[in-house]
Amino acid sequence: MKIGYVQYDPIFGAIDRNIEKVIALMEPLEADLLVLPELCMTGYLITSREEALALAEEVPGGKTTNALCRAARDKDCFIVAGLAERDGENIYNSAVLVGPEGFIACYRKIHLFFEEKLWFTPGDGGFQVHDLPIGKIGIMICFDWFFPESMRALALKGAQVVCHPANLVLPFCQDAMKTRCLENRVFAVTANRTGCEERGGKLLSYTGLSQITGPGGDIVHRCGGAEEIAVAADVDVERALIKSINEYNDLFSDRRTEFYSGLFKE
Amino acid sequence: MKIGYVQYDPIFGAIDRNIEKVIALMEPLEADLLVLPELCMTGYLITSREEALALAEEVPGGKTTNALCRAARDKDCFIVAGLAERDGENIYNSAVLVGPEGFIACYRKIHLFFEEKLWFTPGDGGFQVHDLPIGKIGIMICFDWFFPESMRALALKGAQVVCHPANLVLPFCQDAMKTRCLENRVFAVTANRTGCEERGGKLLSYTGLSQITGPGGDIVHRCGGAEEIAVAADVDVERALIKSINEYNDLFSDRRTEFYSGLFKE
Repeated sequence: MKIGYVQYDPIFGAIDRNIEKVIALMEPLEADLLVLPELCMTGYLITSREEALALAEEVPGGKTTNALCRAARDKDCFIVAGLAERDGENIYNSAVLVGPEGFIACYRKIHLFFEEKLWFTPGDGGFQVHDLPIGKIGIMICFDWFFPESMRALALKGAQVVCHPANLVLPFCQDAMKTRCLENRVFAVTANRTGCEERGGKLLSYTGLSQITGPGGDIVHRCGGAEEIAVAADVDVERALIKSINEYNDLFSDRRTEFYSGLFKE
Repeated sequence: MKIGYVQYDPIFGAIDRNIEKVIALMEPLEADLLVLPELCMTGYLITSREEALALAEEVPGGKTTNALCRAARDKDCFIVAGLAERDGENIYNSAVLVGPEGFIACYRKIHLFFEEKLWFTPGDGGFQVHDLPIGKIGIMICFDWFFPESMRALALKGAQVVCHPANLVLPFCQDAMKTRCLENRVFAVTANRTGCEERGGKLLSYTGLSQITGPGGDIVHRCGGAEEIAVAADVDVERALIKSINEYNDLFSDRRTEFYSGLFKE
């Protein structure tokens, strides 16, 4: 099975141009599952709630989701992509999962980062795993990685591949994903954006280095910091079903939940 | 405040010699808190339950705990050290916390690794935090690191420094501790042993590289793989009280426990 990502530098607010660019990058690539960055068609550096409202789209039915559904059908693959979702007066930092037969699911980011809290409503749908013909797929977005509970919840629900759209500006995530994948024995695809955004007196520089991480904490593929690229790697997603560590230890049955107080809603 | 560790190569079963060696390594070092490796006076590569029973000691009251209490008094410091604890017919892979005024607490390893399950009883006391004059101290032992719930439970209970006696044979822990400390904003002292053990047809090679890790995921100090050494570093443990990430995000209040299903006893 081929899993991969698109790393690129979207132009803020230029949704049509960005869709065209992403489609062109994906076009020559053969893949079963592709992950695109967070807010991949709008850009990230929103400066007001009004701006966010104007950029956000209905899911399903919006321009971005429709374009991704067409691409998934044309390429006969599954795509996970971050986008700004509008639902009535609420805006979510979401990611859609689409496939050859159309829209499948939408994940709303649970742990919002920094000023995202000013525009977006925190996700209300929990961490969900989707049983696809290619394997069980979970989704988390960018800063969700920081909370070990995110990937743990997805892994406990059976995720074999965690799709991780991101707009990373700090240097910690890529190395941390090795630990996240090792401790959960899953694959992860961190699709980061690259480039800079300068808006409203603020400047953000995105770190690129998008990464496919394996269940042994191994880096299957990591690209450069600045390149615009679509990449897919052959992986055996069955590896993520093996939770045995050795003849005495098992990743999940060795968990001693009676001593994990404070980790849950009390 | 000075926190540190002793890394050394114990001789299997030679408890008196090992105590003498550790005391000699600690002697010239000024420190407020010192962490010694897992099973630091017995050696690790036990080959039968009878052997484990013969090496295990009462806590408090055994030879190792008494020697550590004397050292803590003489050095006016706190010490966390791994040892084999006997309690009736049960043997635990434990760590004692002792201070200038004597024995304080014992932690029994919760996540046993590999053949440890043949000799040791799994810990039954949970993850505890101890409020000392130098700060709040938590303890976990070696393989506990692999489960993110271990350090999370300690951090949620207020630990500023996680004392981590270890006998590591795999290469993953030291780098993972950067993520563990970053995600919990705590200090950790991973005191690993060095050297090899060859017993009963088995050979284990320990990785050394003992490490003091900071709440920013920074390596405060990491020693070599093979050296026998006692090290302490000046740290500001108040740093571990700051759970604010930026003006919008907080490590703990941003946790959305309602979505962490499966992480606790259901």
